[in-house]
Amino acid sequence: MKKYNYGVIGLGVMGRNLLYNIADNNFSVAGFDLDEEKVKELHNGATEGTTVLGTASLEEFVSVLESPRKIILMVPAGKPVDAVLGNITPLLDKGDIVIDAGNSYFADTNRRVADLASKNLHFMGMGVSGGEQGARRGPSIMPGGDLEAFNLLQPMLEAISAKVDGEACTAYMGKGSAGNYVKMVHNGIEYAIMQLITEAYDLLRKGANLNNDQLYEVFKTWNEGEMNSFLIEITRDIFKQKDDLTDGYLVDKILDKAGAKGTGKWTSEQAMEIGVSIPTIDIAVTSRILSSYKEERIKASQLYSKEEISKPENTELFIKEVGDALYLSTLISYAQGLALLVKASEEYQFEIPLKDVVKIWRGGCIIRSVLLEKFYQAYSKEENLSNILLNEGVSEIVKDKISSLRKTSSYAVLNGIPSLGIQTALGYFDAYTTESLPVNLLQAQRDYFGAHTYQRVDREGVFHTSWNSKNN
Amino acid sequence: MKKYNYGVIGLGVMGRNLLYNIADNNFSVAGFDLDEEKVKELHNGATEGTTVLGTASLEEFVSVLESPRKIILMVPAGKPVDAVLGNITPLLDKGDIVIDAGNSYFADTNRRVADLASKNLHFMGMGVSGGEQGARRGPSIMPGGDLEAFNLLQPMLEAISAKVDGEACTAYMGKGSAGNYVKMVHNGIEYAIMQLITEAYDLLRKGANLNNDQLYEVFKTWNEGEMNSFLIEITRDIFKQKDDLTDGYLVDKILDKAGAKGTGKWTSEQAMEIGVSIPTIDIAVTSRILSSYKEERIKASQLYSKEEISKPENTELFIKEVGDALYLSTLISYAQGLALLVKASEEYQFEIPLKDVVKIWRGGCIIRSVLLEKFYQAYSKEENLSNILLNEGVSEIVKDKISSLRKTSSYAVLNGIPSLGIQTALGYFDAYTTESLPVNLLQAQRDYFGAHTYQRVDREGVFHTSWNSKNN
Repeated sequence: MKKYNYGVIGLGVMGRNLLYNIADNNFSVAGFDLDEEKVKELHNGATEGTTVLGTASLEEFVSVLESPRKIILMVPAGKPVDAVLGNITPLLDKGDIVIDAGNSYFADTNRRVADLASKNLHFMGMGVSGGEQGARRGPSIMPGGDLEAFNLLQPMLEAISAKVDGEACTAYMGKGSAGNYVKMVHNGIEYAIMQLITEAYDLLRKGANLNNDQLYEVFKTWNEGEMNSFLIEITRDIFKQKDDLTDGYLVDKILDKAGAKGTGKWTSEQAMEIGVSIPTIDIAVTSRILSSYKEERIKASQLYSKEEISKPENTELFIKEVGDALYLSTLISYAQGLALLVKASEEYQFEIPLKDVVKIWRGGCIIRSVLLEKFYQAYSKEENLSNILLNEGVSEIVKDKISSLRKTSSYAVLNGIPSLGIQTALGYFDAYTTESLPVNLLQAQRDYFGAHTYQRVDREGVFHTSWNSKNN
Repeated sequence: MKKYNYGVIGLGVMGRNLLYNIADNNFSVAGFDLDEEKVKELHNGATEGTTVLGTASLEEFVSVLESPRKIILMVPAGKPVDAVLGNITPLLDKGDIVIDAGNSYFADTNRRVADLASKNLHFMGMGVSGGEQGARRGPSIMPGGDLEAFNLLQPMLEAISAKVDGEACTAYMGKGSAGNYVKMVHNGIEYAIMQLITEAYDLLRKGANLNNDQLYEVFKTWNEGEMNSFLIEITRDIFKQKDDLTDGYLVDKILDKAGAKGTGKWTSEQAMEIGVSIPTIDIAVTSRILSSYKEERIKASQLYSKEEISKPENTELFIKEVGDALYLSTLISYAQGLALLVKASEEYQFEIPLKDVVKIWRGGCIIRSVLLEKFYQAYSKEENLSNILLNEGVSEIVKDKISSLRKTSSYAVLNGIPSLGIQTALGYFDAYTTESLPVNLLQAQRDYFGAHTYQRVDREGVFHTSWNSKNN
């Protein structure tokens, strides 16, 4: 019997599409799912001439795979992953490889790597971004962990991933659970950019009174230039979408309560845990929470009348400034996320190659943008850049846009248009570029009431003062 | 032998001061510490005529306490608490009470309550705020958990706590680990207020060029009016403190790198975990982290030249506006923290009496302020207020100050003065009081690339659209 090159467990949209993508690249693939319907339907979506097999049991599934088995899991993060592992590991042989391609929490991956290693099995965490379409036509793929296993997979991963300038959007992201970690931070940045886009939309509709057709045109123009990116592109298209159920545009019919799957929250919690500042990602997480208080917001809006919004003097200039503010605050969000990866790489000994991270984010994934090309150039020059804002090429962009970010932020706060993302991006930049923060006072307060001690600017050591003993 | 009413384990500054405070109130107290020196020195600080005993071993310590034993732990949170419990529980008898008065994580308390209950012992988590001086002269005390144990302690707690208008700053905070949770959120609010004060300081020194003498006068004036509070008061005094080692003022010699003990971080992580938005507390946590990047900040400040700061036209008005902005953003920080308590109370079935929380925060603790009197009035009228901003009395204050907060925020962003705390307080207010946020677009994006579905404004149900299939 001819054996299959790869196996995929979990035939939901993402798993099925990834399986077809692998098959399209001339690998034979077997699939398994607990849902028999999904197994039966598997053949329907496959490209003609590709070798795809739906299997009815885990036993059949493992029996048709070539050795060492290479099994990709695409099941929901958490307990489902452990359940599958519990069922399948007794059926595997020494040297087989299990690749978790879901959004698993990195610490769970560490635990599973150790568990499977004790059974002489390889386990890898691998981030996959690009949504349904990406999985089918070419995602960005972030594998990490076992290098021996990675080497076996590399040709397939390079074949199925997105390409930018002929280069595959996949690379080894580092040791241990680095693949999951990089994907988690990718999603944190995604949260921030989505938040920023909604704020730009709000400024344009409230400040410049743009309707959906005009918003379409603005985002279309933005997407044709330096802001070209997946999220700007789909936003453009969203403004064009008509509603099927009523007249008008669909975007106006959607309720303003955000859902979340948790990867943004993990990113914020991780950053706090290892001491990295990512306020624009934090605020994107908390803004989704705020949106869910719909009833309270209605009550509050009745108690507090809104500011009268003063129209910008020059609409065209206003739109340009909002665009620049969005562009720069997006850049600053990437800077925060990348700085988190730098620190995590040290903290967890991941050895994450930042240059490769931004290289493979250039295509396939949700946060792909032409801006990443600039970051790629930056890391190509300085591999150990602690923060992308310290790169000279990047600093030129920042200097060009910073005045628009200030004006837009000022306009928003004066007119009562919520803009937590834009404000925290600017606030982060202003604090990060300030040599002397007023935190000397905070240290004085801590020492005053809690004897927490402080350091001095003019000499080494740790000091405590008996405050107020000689005053008054 | 005459037995002692109370025992204290952990004779560091906080434990010793709390012990003396109890003794001052006519209770006899025995103390124990692993550090023999601390035990020996215990008598030295006690008020003459009070009954205080240092014991040399845990065995001696438990043998001198009356039944049921009432033992207060004041040791560092985490492993030290478990270590003490491991040593002492075998020496205790059924019905004895152990009260953890440190900043323990609430989930740790839940575990310990269950563990000690299985040994027929009572365990309580109790927050104590007020720093060294508070512990000695009257702190704010936040006990929670076992009601039977609380009733036994209540007379002592009321005696040693701070008083406001003759009322003790202690009350039962709710079931389980509610005492620790309330204290954690107290500390989160403390982080936010301290951050906001440093920003006001920065605006006054950079914007209005005030020197330390002038800053002293401004904070003195503020403290004499509606902003009267412990943190404003000590800030006033800090500006007066001369440096012992060199000429000039001490505050100018302190390094601008903040330390943190973790309770702020816990608050932010908890809020994300149970879905409450507290951006000004989050930003206070992340700003301390940002301050620690001193070397990077120096590099960045060299790469990016600072904005020229435009002086305010009317210095007096500017100072008033900064004061109003500080007052209102402080109010909004309390609102965020109190909203977290409301949700946590539901989530963990704490049954936290919000009215009592703000009542006992009026005195003794680090975040005491006359503003809490307004909150106390608000909760006295509406016990189930989901957010203090929804109270009419509070809304009058907000409406009076909001214009100053907008102007100050705008001034800061235009002049490059970092003000993340002020900005997030305003941004929270603006989002919270907005009926329709631009989050409809975010839900469209999530459904577009991830098929995450959305709700509609005009009908019930969950919807998914095949975006862009009919466009272009």
